[in-house]
Amino acid sequence: MSDQKDNLIIFDTTLRDGEQSPGVTLNTEEKIQIARQLSRLGVNVLEAGFPVASPGDFNAVQRIAREVGPLMEGRTGDGRVNQEMVICGLARSVPHDIQTAYDAVKDAPRHRIHVFLATSDIHLEFKLKISREQCLQRISEMVGFAKSLCADIEFSPEDAGRSDPSFLCEALAVAIKAGATTLNIPDTVGYNTPQEYGALIKHLRENTEGADSVVFSTHCHNDLGLATANTLAGISNGARQVEVTINGIGERAGNTSLEEVVMNIHTHPHSYPVQHTINTRLFFSTSRMVEDLSGMAVQANKAIVGRNAFLHESGIHQDGVLKNKQTYEIIRPEDVGVTTGNLALGKHSGRHAFKTKLEDLGYGGPALTDVQFQAAFVKFKDLADSKKSGVTDGDMHALVADVRSSTMAAGSSAPPMEDVERGSATSTDLPEDAHELQAEPGVVRFTLKHLQVFTGLGITPTATVTLHDAVKGKDITDVALANNGPIEATFSAIQRIIGADIQLLNFNVAATSEGQDTLGKVAVRIARSAQEPTENSLAPSGSVPKFTGLATN
Amino acid sequence: MSDQKDNLIIFDTTLRDGEQSPGVTLNTEEKIQIARQLSRLGVNVLEAGFPVASPGDFNAVQRIAREVGPLMEGRTGDGRVNQEMVICGLARSVPHDIQTAYDAVKDAPRHRIHVFLATSDIHLEFKLKISREQCLQRISEMVGFAKSLCADIEFSPEDAGRSDPSFLCEALAVAIKAGATTLNIPDTVGYNTPQEYGALIKHLRENTEGADSVVFSTHCHNDLGLATANTLAGISNGARQVEVTINGIGERAGNTSLEEVVMNIHTHPHSYPVQHTINTRLFFSTSRMVEDLSGMAVQANKAIVGRNAFLHESGIHQDGVLKNKQTYEIIRPEDVGVTTGNLALGKHSGRHAFKTKLEDLGYGGPALTDVQFQAAFVKFKDLADSKKSGVTDGDMHALVADVRSSTMAAGSSAPPMEDVERGSATSTDLPEDAHELQAEPGVVRFTLKHLQVFTGLGITPTATVTLHDAVKGKDITDVALANNGPIEATFSAIQRIIGADIQLLNFNVAATSEGQDTLGKVAVRIARSAQEPTENSLAPSGSVPKFTGLATN
Repeated sequence: MSDQKDNLIIFDTTLRDGEQSPGVTLNTEEKIQIARQLSRLGVNVLEAGFPVASPGDFNAVQRIAREVGPLMEGRTGDGRVNQEMVICGLARSVPHDIQTAYDAVKDAPRHRIHVFLATSDIHLEFKLKISREQCLQRISEMVGFAKSLCADIEFSPEDAGRSDPSFLCEALAVAIKAGATTLNIPDTVGYNTPQEYGALIKHLRENTEGADSVVFSTHCHNDLGLATANTLAGISNGARQVEVTINGIGERAGNTSLEEVVMNIHTHPHSYPVQHTINTRLFFSTSRMVEDLSGMAVQANKAIVGRNAFLHESGIHQDGVLKNKQTYEIIRPEDVGVTTGNLALGKHSGRHAFKTKLEDLGYGGPALTDVQFQAAFVKFKDLADSKKSGVTDGDMHALVADVRSSTMAAGSSAPPMEDVERGSATSTDLPEDAHELQAEPGVVRFTLKHLQVFTGLGITPTATVTLHDAVKGKDITDVALANNGPIEATFSAIQRIIGADIQLLNFNVAATSEGQDTLGKVAVRIARSAQEPTENSLAPSGSVPKFTGLATN
Repeated sequence: MSDQKDNLIIFDTTLRDGEQSPGVTLNTEEKIQIARQLSRLGVNVLEAGFPVASPGDFNAVQRIAREVGPLMEGRTGDGRVNQEMVICGLARSVPHDIQTAYDAVKDAPRHRIHVFLATSDIHLEFKLKISREQCLQRISEMVGFAKSLCADIEFSPEDAGRSDPSFLCEALAVAIKAGATTLNIPDTVGYNTPQEYGALIKHLRENTEGADSVVFSTHCHNDLGLATANTLAGISNGARQVEVTINGIGERAGNTSLEEVVMNIHTHPHSYPVQHTINTRLFFSTSRMVEDLSGMAVQANKAIVGRNAFLHESGIHQDGVLKNKQTYEIIRPEDVGVTTGNLALGKHSGRHAFKTKLEDLGYGGPALTDVQFQAAFVKFKDLADSKKSGVTDGDMHALVADVRSSTMAAGSSAPPMEDVERGSATSTDLPEDAHELQAEPGVVRFTLKHLQVFTGLGITPTATVTLHDAVKGKDITDVALANNGPIEATFSAIQRIIGADIQLLNFNVAATSEGQDTLGKVAVRIARSAQEPTENSLAPSGSVPKFTGLATN
């Protein structure tokens, strides 16, 4: 890639817009794990959350700013970003939101406040109940207030696609004048064609006063399968930042996939006027991490990171692409972290081979703590002993997911949260009793000691469960039967012990690789029955406990 | 839609290119079910298979031609195609392939032969070992031979993207002269940008002698997430046929999604110069059918047919889109067959309500046979009795998938296959003993009579299995234990009974809806251990037995 090209700013919103995927809720430890991986991947700007939404959100953003913001591991060297990741917090155009966002991100060496306000008449009239004049004034005041706290300010005109184009230019000019350094143009409903979206970016750049001094940013949704194409059209028309998520997770059909946009630029060095500083070899492990922690499964035929994406039946395709190397850069599986040798390790593999293999798979450096590495190695030795066919790459990914979730469940207790005054309209308060199942914040109250299941065809399933209750300091055992199978029986027995009503939201068991002695990855998502889903579209939903882990099949 | 617009020809290749997805193998009954649904959906041309590849492929294409080819159900009326579906068979440019393809499709009222030959120098030199001159001569002879059998001929220059553009125009002109009526331009490696692919279609249309008299067709792959955008660019530049698959299944990252292309045209009536005749309300049920039968799971954030695609958090988005109705046609969930009311039926619902609900969900008409409908109703009553929270739409979809697979497994014995001489180079012969587990073709030899499983935490899992052997006419029982869980124990017990080595390829249990008494959908994919995957990229892979069905959780 030529040094004359502009760097494309990769703004990752997996932890904010991605976390708004229905059913996805990440806890603080999970968010920090993902943030560390995104830092290592080379993401330029990380939107870590919406700090005013809840104390939990504030805490997560603040910890990411403090713990991940300074990290430089993987970010230095030729073709890398060579700067800390910018940690960004979202805020509505009200002083309290902006102050809270600033307080959450300010401890990161590089930080940004992302302020938004709708500019379409329908939003102004019915949602905000203000005039166009008042809208411009609020942009000026609120961007100005943000600027008084922080040099790096992004402004998004919400519902830009349906705003009057000339008013939109006026609003953007006011934002620039008040200090905005990045202007983000959302395709809110995901309905733009690439031609339309490219033309919109071009129009705004050409008709907004001061446009030359700021970065324009794309924010596309995939409702019609065009998020990547629309984002690339934005780049071709002058956008230099793209808002994206890992695996394209997000509301409805999701956001633009980070990995698709980057690999388009990567493989077409002559087609796009930008270069990137992402370490593409971490795509597969990053994708797996987000899949495991979010519970949003990636389909086999997903571009770049799907399980089948690199299953070429014949070598001739690759040969041919190689021949055309002047036009396209081929994607070799290893370029995106897909290792072709499936058999990873056997029972005689030692600690060093295990560590090397983890690094090959993208789990080097901060991907695992020392405690997690030790736990993973112990599990690996157990598995290698019992699995005659050898430990596969799929098993390794599953092992990593398992130690991540189990060492989190064991709970490094979080630092005490700073005082945060609650935001009003959009705050999603946790139910009063959200923590009653925890001994104290971050510490698990109940631990599974014993489980015994009897089931079959024509047999009434029964489950006997023993849980250790850390509060009462004793083991409790109960048994239950069920009409619909052993999972229901197990949940019923647990309910009898803990005395709370649990609703099963989602249950999935999948083999991690081939063979009848393969590991199974189990994802169970439950909620307290009384809990209602949150209504607000910007705030992340409330506390949905989630358990993922490894199980024998 | 205006009557002045050209109709876009939807060429569905779910059963041919889609079936080439790694791990996907559809049996004849499953292919016929999908073909019937695609007919009802309004597909214009169905590529039913590659008849020379194997006797099984020939038989499937022939039965589709005879049984599905004449169907008009759902295809008549305003805005519909009002013609039978064209049944198409793929053939290499050799006489035997072409004759076999013709024999397979000829009984359909409307039928097509799809002939392909590579035109890139690398293919000519290394794969076909012929000169450019010989290439042109073979196109002329083989398209001419096909034309002598059949009026409707499609020609694909394989590897068009890497062929010398002027030679490509020459080759296409030869094909037109020999009688080709459709020219299909594959983006073989999925690396084109929309600009490049659109320009290629435009160039070929403008520089090929006789181009005005034929239909140009797109065939795109999704390796960089741009299949839909590339296909739309082809349409904008004059293509009037699109080759697509349901859910975008296909090799590697898959083919272009039928539903995405159609909904782009549907929602942007002013942006594309074509109209379609697809019944979009069948998209969701069709997607589910292909997901169930192919085993290729659709991710929640898939455009149009993903489970989250229409989970709008707030109503304001839809309001706004409605306001812009002159620009976009909104997609309402019901437009693509997603019903918003989740609670379908209760225990007091009768046969009529059940049938109406099935029709609402897209399973009217030929989607279920009478036998399947009866079986579904019986299962529904059982389920409604045991499930206190009511039967949901998700349960209904699962019920349909279950009766489909179980009534197939019970085996309406297929009509005897006609004599087919085997194709040579690419035929994927079934292993000699492929049918030894069947009593006779289409009839199942072993049936599960009894299963008893004991497992838990710290317990060695055991499974006791009784199978009825239809050949020996008796029940056989055995027990096995396993290190890795009850699934392994169950498979081990089955292996002991049937005396064959089975490899577990894939195992997945997923809840079909919420609640701990929800149904679980189980997909297990197994293969005889000795079997090697097929090497050829065009021929579908061999016989991988597959079981999908409903289970209690």
